[in-house]
Amino acid sequence: MKASQFFISTLKEAPADAEVVSHKLMMRAGMIKRLGAGIYNYMPMGLRVIRKVEKIIREEMDAAGAVECLMPVIQPAELWQETGRFDKMGPELLRVKDRHNRDFVVQPTSEEVITDIARQELRSYRQLPKNFYHIQTKFRDERRPRFGLMRGREFTMKDAYSFDRDMDAAGRSYDNMYAAYCKIFDRFGLQYRAVAADTGAIGGDRSHEFQVIADTGEDAIVYCPTSDYAANIELAEAVALLSARGAATQGLTKTPTPGKSTCEDVAALLGLPLTQTVKSLVLATDELDKDGLITKTQVWLLLVRGDHELNEVKAGKVEGLKGGFRFATAGEIDAHFGCKPGYLGPIGLKAPLKIVADRTVAQMADFVCGANEVDFHFTGANWGRDLPEPDVVADIRNVVAGDPSPDGKGELAIQRGIEVGHVFYLGTKYSAAMNATFLDENGKPKLMEMGCYGIGVTRILGAAIEQNHDARGIIWPDAMAPFTVVICPIGADRSEDVKQAADKLYAELKELGVDVLLDDRGERPGAMFADWELIGVPHRVVLGDRGLKEGQVEYQGRRDEAATKVAVADIVGHLKGKLKL
Amino acid sequence: MKASQFFISTLKEAPADAEVVSHKLMMRAGMIKRLGAGIYNYMPMGLRVIRKVEKIIREEMDAAGAVECLMPVIQPAELWQETGRFDKMGPELLRVKDRHNRDFVVQPTSEEVITDIARQELRSYRQLPKNFYHIQTKFRDERRPRFGLMRGREFTMKDAYSFDRDMDAAGRSYDNMYAAYCKIFDRFGLQYRAVAADTGAIGGDRSHEFQVIADTGEDAIVYCPTSDYAANIELAEAVALLSARGAATQGLTKTPTPGKSTCEDVAALLGLPLTQTVKSLVLATDELDKDGLITKTQVWLLLVRGDHELNEVKAGKVEGLKGGFRFATAGEIDAHFGCKPGYLGPIGLKAPLKIVADRTVAQMADFVCGANEVDFHFTGANWGRDLPEPDVVADIRNVVAGDPSPDGKGELAIQRGIEVGHVFYLGTKYSAAMNATFLDENGKPKLMEMGCYGIGVTRILGAAIEQNHDARGIIWPDAMAPFTVVICPIGADRSEDVKQAADKLYAELKELGVDVLLDDRGERPGAMFADWELIGVPHRVVLGDRGLKEGQVEYQGRRDEAATKVAVADIVGHLKGKLKL
Repeated sequence: MKASQFFISTLKEAPADAEVVSHKLMMRAGMIKRLGAGIYNYMPMGLRVIRKVEKIIREEMDAAGAVECLMPVIQPAELWQETGRFDKMGPELLRVKDRHNRDFVVQPTSEEVITDIARQELRSYRQLPKNFYHIQTKFRDERRPRFGLMRGREFTMKDAYSFDRDMDAAGRSYDNMYAAYCKIFDRFGLQYRAVAADTGAIGGDRSHEFQVIADTGEDAIVYCPTSDYAANIELAEAVALLSARGAATQGLTKTPTPGKSTCEDVAALLGLPLTQTVKSLVLATDELDKDGLITKTQVWLLLVRGDHELNEVKAGKVEGLKGGFRFATAGEIDAHFGCKPGYLGPIGLKAPLKIVADRTVAQMADFVCGANEVDFHFTGANWGRDLPEPDVVADIRNVVAGDPSPDGKGELAIQRGIEVGHVFYLGTKYSAAMNATFLDENGKPKLMEMGCYGIGVTRILGAAIEQNHDARGIIWPDAMAPFTVVICPIGADRSEDVKQAADKLYAELKELGVDVLLDDRGERPGAMFADWELIGVPHRVVLGDRGLKEGQVEYQGRRDEAATKVAVADIVGHLKGKLKL
Repeated sequence: MKASQFFISTLKEAPADAEVVSHKLMMRAGMIKRLGAGIYNYMPMGLRVIRKVEKIIREEMDAAGAVECLMPVIQPAELWQETGRFDKMGPELLRVKDRHNRDFVVQPTSEEVITDIARQELRSYRQLPKNFYHIQTKFRDERRPRFGLMRGREFTMKDAYSFDRDMDAAGRSYDNMYAAYCKIFDRFGLQYRAVAADTGAIGGDRSHEFQVIADTGEDAIVYCPTSDYAANIELAEAVALLSARGAATQGLTKTPTPGKSTCEDVAALLGLPLTQTVKSLVLATDELDKDGLITKTQVWLLLVRGDHELNEVKAGKVEGLKGGFRFATAGEIDAHFGCKPGYLGPIGLKAPLKIVADRTVAQMADFVCGANEVDFHFTGANWGRDLPEPDVVADIRNVVAGDPSPDGKGELAIQRGIEVGHVFYLGTKYSAAMNATFLDENGKPKLMEMGCYGIGVTRILGAAIEQNHDARGIIWPDAMAPFTVVICPIGADRSEDVKQAADKLYAELKELGVDVLLDDRGERPGAMFADWELIGVPHRVVLGDRGLKEGQVEYQGRRDEAATKVAVADIVGHLKGKLKL
């Protein structure tokens, strides 16, 4: 490609609404252009990156035996009503009425449509397993779209859906996709982790997020540097930090802690380690009658160590809390504790409630907790002696860096990540709702076991930039770059030698199949270099009159501190080495 | 590709709602699957064809210097309000409200968005000409979607938009796109014609439709077999069929024609040629005040020869009718003619009106027309003697086959066609509405001259099939076929020789870059052949045990009556010849 036949549009400054670096750089590099909130034009430079991402995904999906199709953007509501998602999904689901006042949705994913296809097309066990995918425009009407392509409303996603005859086969389909995703992300040239994720109501352990590592990532991902353990923070198991409960050595003492309503403040006041304190969180669950009226409310006290945070996903797995919980009201708290928050604790309750202790808390002795009296805490509290054993002991906290890895093979570390892919075992959630059956070997109808597998195509661009950039701009991995090599001739309008050498190198690289751009715009060197550093082309060759007289050109990798002089005769070979051709 | 890794689903019968052959065959071949009215899943087999069409379009658009981008499916209404199309367009424009109750449209085309991009990005004459295109999902909420992909609601279209500094440059951009379209349609391997089309309010002669020739086409296209004249029926110029007006030889005679209210019936009754009769059509134009109330109405009598049809597009170009017209009401007709339709004519009017005579009618002598009295016609009517000369003489009729070509180089013929592409000079229609200016050489802002260029990607599939099919199924041109070659081994499960020979041929063809499918499903020969004839793969090789023992395989082109025996050693060379490799 020659720059004169392409469209290059860079900006010195990012628009004010661009908050994160990837958004700023994509706007400045002319990759995207805002059309509305969370809606972007993919400009020629950005589209090239998207197409490279799509191509890699397509090749690996095909290689894994998945079959590409294309499901519509605008989908009839009927199918979405079959699964209940038309009503259950919030306003993120963009609903449309056509001229006949019929309901449609702008698809955010396509479980319903693919299940509808499967129940019509996959009639026999002989046709299974089958995996369909498409790369299609999606829309999610985010309340607060932001971060450019990272949390847009219209975006491109690859979503795949597998159909299997039983759980074992579905597991193989899952593993197959997991392996394909690893190949895909390897080929992108991004640092990533596949982390175990919560499976929610589906159960089992077949849910993995593919997270691109970036300090600016919204997700915390947990891993063990000395083993292959990796999970997102919602799922990562927190073991008890005390192997056994110590014996009581102190008496229970009500201690004044005026105005100290946090564990940190209490520990500081009393000169005790924060790890000696226990934090109280009060939840409530409601039983409803068929009209949705509350018939019974149960109040719960959840205890985590003072330096730990409650993990609501884990709390939601405790028996009794599975159906959904809420934080208790001020009235409920007063009724059960006779005290306002900040001084609550499990000792001396006004009304009975259920106590859930985190695994670590259950092993603590001589701990500090609220005394259910404003401006007072207990010290020297001990299970069994000062209060009954907890009703439930469970993992209900977030892990922290340095926790033992649950596989016993080291200590956990925490990184930030950006979720760009997800593989998920769906079981029969959709096939049951839509009666998607096949005839098994005995001629009996059986629900299909499903899995779904998403990759946020446009989101990957943002994630890649969050991971790979510097003060000058984007640093694309070779596989994703809009152009792999840029040739920058200096003064080609004045020097026929420069022009000819540039044209010759361009032709040679094209012949080799290299995605090369010749910058024939006639820009000054400074502006030209700034553009390509901003755009993030990974390999640059500069040709100037003086260098050519000495038989040399300059090569600079986007991460290199400085340019390297390379003999004209060697530059193609040099690039072949860099590009691993 | 091996069939076992792909998805093949054929039907014996087409669904009842499939009216045209392309729709029936695409459904039966498993290329598309209905999701809702005018909304289809593109199944793997159909998607392969779409991708091939897209690839050819992309290559030729790139080669013509157009730059690919991607504009959103969901577009903010504000831009559509700037051009007035948000309100002016009918219910075909699918309008959506987001969670904040803001208006959006699901794009049917992207003039507004691209003009918005251009007015921001193209600031100087130095950046022009520029041509942006995208291949994107479109939605038109057709009142009566039908014919499968031919008149769907959701469809894929390539739309390109050129921006130029003046009309001359815009003309060059237009010619460039016209040439690119010829290359694209040549490469598809379809019989097509580029025909001149009406430019409407834009004016000029820069509008061409690309029509795929098919007997079942909805459009009539006019061409001259002995010259390069071609136009659609709306535009094709009808010359006067009489070079000069003959002298009157008959007296005006009121003749009883009881119950004969059509020219055909009158001519038959009177034993005169239909070409001696004149048909009367009554139109009306209204002048409105600023509140839209009618202030004045003009009634018009349009006259075409009895064997001709009024062309409303041409009528709309007559001075006085340009602002829009309607057919006259019964009351208006009675007021001006004192007679009901069927016996109307230009002689003996009750109230004055304007008479527009078709060019041929204006040259007629001794003609037959209604006598403005039920059950009576005049014979022997003559201009000047029996009625005044017409107010306007104009081309207001459709051409018919055999008319002289307007270029004087032969006679016109008429074919049916399916419009799949359109190149159109827009002038400043959108740039003026949206104030899209650039700075010219004198630093003065000037409106950009625009052109738009569409290709109905998914529609081409339907058109190709309408043109290329037989009783057994689709006959794809090589360039569009989902697979170019299919290898059908007979009894590969019983014969290792067959299996090995099939695998070897498959590997050799893949090595050559041929898009080959190996049918390893183990289907019986009859079912297998029927599938591939229905699906329309253009080249088939059958390998069987008996043939292989004789060193032979069978080749059959999709249009061939019978198979040809080819030596195993020659089959690759044979295919190379057929595929022009």
